[in-house]
Amino acid sequence: MHTLYQFQSSGNCYKLRLAMHQLGIPFHKVEVDILQKQSRTPEFLAMNPNGRIPVLKVGERYLPESNAALWYLAQGSALMPTDSFAQAQLLQWMFFEQYSHEPNIATIRYWVHIANTADQFEQEIEAKRKAGYAALRVMDTHLAGNPYLVAGQYSIADIALYAYTHVAAEGGFDLSSFTHIARWLSDIEAQPGYINMANS
Amino acid sequence: MHTLYQFQSSGNCYKLRLAMHQLGIPFHKVEVDILQKQSRTPEFLAMNPNGRIPVLKVGERYLPESNAALWYLAQGSALMPTDSFAQAQLLQWMFFEQYSHEPNIATIRYWVHIANTADQFEQEIEAKRKAGYAALRVMDTHLAGNPYLVAGQYSIADIALYAYTHVAAEGGFDLSSFTHIARWLSDIEAQPGYINMANS
Repeated sequence: MHTLYQFQSSGNCYKLRLAMHQLGIPFHKVEVDILQKQSRTPEFLAMNPNGRIPVLKVGERYLPESNAALWYLAQGSALMPTDSFAQAQLLQWMFFEQYSHEPNIATIRYWVHIANTADQFEQEIEAKRKAGYAALRVMDTHLAGNPYLVAGQYSIADIALYAYTHVAAEGGFDLSSFTHIARWLSDIEAQPGYINMANS
Repeated sequence: MHTLYQFQSSGNCYKLRLAMHQLGIPFHKVEVDILQKQSRTPEFLAMNPNGRIPVLKVGERYLPESNAALWYLAQGSALMPTDSFAQAQLLQWMFFEQYSHEPNIATIRYWVHIANTADQFEQEIEAKRKAGYAALRVMDTHLAGNPYLVAGQYSIADIALYAYTHVAAEGGFDLSSFTHIARWLSDIEAQPGYINMANS
């Protein structure tokens, strides 16, 4: 059985819980309290020298990086289209998530909602707020003409971007003008096997 | 024939030129002057709403995100191991590159060496310098026990991380203590079909 080294309220970790729930893959959870720097201990760094959660343990091997683990879990499943260009488009959106979306939207949520350190990061939050809204506009525009992010079907690209988009308000983002994102969030929450962040 | 919309001195664009050269894939280059904001014109945004280079045009379709395009180009080639866990490890390193390496090492190089705007970003450079060295330490430690990043063989993970590591000094990073990275850079430069950034 896989083991997920994770922090419950991290969207990056929730991605893997949601995917494994929907794919019927059983797993153990091991909680790593990042507020207590438990991802920087020698024991944790032996699993992931980059000192970040999640890490998925598969047999005796460790796989860091949430979107790489999503890819591993979804190979050959309904969460991954089979066409090679569509697979590249999954990765396009997953790299967009890690470069243009997560460092802005998830990081502000972390400071505001998880670590309670927003007052130390006022300048950074201003810059990241602007970049976060730009990422949301890119998504909303795309979702205006597409039911899901890639190939007209629910996939790991949607899971990757759902994770922090659906809790963006916890970092103070106002999603009310992004009507296509709102429709897409609802459609994801109606998928078979959907489970929310708290209960997964 | 593929078309690469690119900026010649961008490492993200060089990744694709190097891979296509080594894979024998012919392509056209179209230069996009990011210093003149040519990636933010309506015409460019129609190709990539995220306003970033590179974009690989395949037939009539556009594929943004350098590492997604690398994946597309390398499918079924010697640059991609066939084992499914090793493929996930390729992605692990490519997500590491876009999250922990490129935003620090490439961004400082851009300010210092390309845009000549380092004086406007002193505070950001200090934070990114520290994070950039941390990423280099992760790589150096891994390369102490591995000839290449994944599965003992040269792959698109090596291309993705070579792109900005080999020019890190242009942003003021001192690589002299990273002896395993130095060995790995030399081994990549000895690969069949290697071509440098300027000549590709």
